[in-house]
Amino acid sequence: MRLARFDGGRLGVVIGDEIADITALTGANPAQWPDMNMIRLIRDFDRLRGAIEAALPGLAGIPLAQVRLETPVPWPNKIIAYPVNYHAHGREMQAQYRATNQGFFLKPGSALSGPADPVVLPAVPGREVHHESELAIIIGKTCRSVAREDWKDVVFGYACLLDMVVRGREERVFRKAYDTFCPVGPWITTADAVNDPATLDMKLWVNDDLRQKANTRDLVLDIPGMVATASAVMTLQPGDIIATGTPEGVGPVVDGDRIRIVIDQVGEMAVNVVQGKEGMTEVFAQPYVPPIIKQA
Amino acid sequence: MRLARFDGGRLGVVIGDEIADITALTGANPAQWPDMNMIRLIRDFDRLRGAIEAALPGLAGIPLAQVRLETPVPWPNKIIAYPVNYHAHGREMQAQYRATNQGFFLKPGSALSGPADPVVLPAVPGREVHHESELAIIIGKTCRSVAREDWKDVVFGYACLLDMVVRGREERVFRKAYDTFCPVGPWITTADAVNDPATLDMKLWVNDDLRQKANTRDLVLDIPGMVATASAVMTLQPGDIIATGTPEGVGPVVDGDRIRIVIDQVGEMAVNVVQGKEGMTEVFAQPYVPPIIKQA
Repeated sequence: MRLARFDGGRLGVVIGDEIADITALTGANPAQWPDMNMIRLIRDFDRLRGAIEAALPGLAGIPLAQVRLETPVPWPNKIIAYPVNYHAHGREMQAQYRATNQGFFLKPGSALSGPADPVVLPAVPGREVHHESELAIIIGKTCRSVAREDWKDVVFGYACLLDMVVRGREERVFRKAYDTFCPVGPWITTADAVNDPATLDMKLWVNDDLRQKANTRDLVLDIPGMVATASAVMTLQPGDIIATGTPEGVGPVVDGDRIRIVIDQVGEMAVNVVQGKEGMTEVFAQPYVPPIIKQA
Repeated sequence: MRLARFDGGRLGVVIGDEIADITALTGANPAQWPDMNMIRLIRDFDRLRGAIEAALPGLAGIPLAQVRLETPVPWPNKIIAYPVNYHAHGREMQAQYRATNQGFFLKPGSALSGPADPVVLPAVPGREVHHESELAIIIGKTCRSVAREDWKDVVFGYACLLDMVVRGREERVFRKAYDTFCPVGPWITTADAVNDPATLDMKLWVNDDLRQKANTRDLVLDIPGMVATASAVMTLQPGDIIATGTPEGVGPVVDGDRIRIVIDQVGEMAVNVVQGKEGMTEVFAQPYVPPIIKQA
């Protein structure tokens, strides 16, 4: 099943080129702030799924072209991200570490945007903003210390994710935290609709150029390992997002570009890139700092 | 005013050694999950404050000793943290950078705990877990690109915060993300009740040993600068927490210790340290990785 958020926090099921509105059926209130409706739907999905499937034939299908899709989980408990999780990307970044010996970092919920939102480049002179194409895992249960072999019990679904970043030597989280630096969508594809997440083809184009092309079989830390590692440290919550890492081929985007990501069985999402006026900080105006020897 | 969360998500005002229950008055529903009641109270506080103050004389005071205080904002949009933000701490960590040229990192909402919760040490053999004593800023408004001189407009209040960390060379966020690694409390002291947050004395004891003693005037990046830098990058939300950095004197804690933090005008919080059984990950079992030359 493909679960989407649209038109100001409504919930829907995408079937072909149409979307069925399940807002009322799920008891969601789009006016509520902060918007926790998708998180509650994910938590309650095992209980609600039968009623949703039974109601779908009677619900009118709205053409997707007539709605505005939004980021599926706008205020997650956390967005977990694994750095350098494809060897070829590690080589292109001259990184001496991998996700297996570094662990994860975090992106802020405020960076989330959806398939209809542009990526807004900060006004940071002299810096490149790079695209990173990633498979997103959406967690389905409140859980801690999940064993590798139990990973499927806590994975709700998958989505396309762009991990945008200002290149530089400052704190990685800081350079990846800008508003609109985490497009997720176009919807959540539930886990049962994905044959094997460990063998998914993923491609990213900037305009007509194919920039990234990989298969999730090349992940350094695999999906069971990512779930086990994150949950060893933290209680995971329904709606938590894991950005699984980007393959080789990262590169700059500029005003007017269009980024398109396609992940087999999961979805396709294209977003425009526009130059913004905000985002300069004192940090980027500081002189060069030598490599970090010891992290605090 | 001192705003607390207690006894399963109830909201209260602390006066002296008592707490007045304002749950019904504010329209909060403690049964709601995820618990967004304090975040909505912060957003609506300018409108609700008059009614709360008018009602207080008529509300029964419950002795604080009879309630269980909880972390004030359990599911914030984000927890922003500034690394190496006191020079003397930078020297003790042999860090070549400061918050002014590194920016911020993030802690996960799942790490939050309250004044009645123990800090649970992960079962990570051979590693030290250190205390870091910090002033927390609680954001009050949805805002972006706040100018230095406008910082007061968006700061709702202050609290005590412990930024717990497993020492090591892995990704900083990962080592700081464990459940209970971010005690916040004992309540939120609203900004009007703090004379000048730039001249606050802060002390931390482990058992009877005074380990950290500083004044916020020694911050490298000051409070207006932290608000300006964070909001240059991200839209801040009511309930967002800024961990302002720790002074010198960090050090290990072990099972059975008691950590006490006191910040003038803000509050005092003491938490027990216990050894847990969870938390080991493959990452900590990996061999030593040379210093990071280039961040991805």
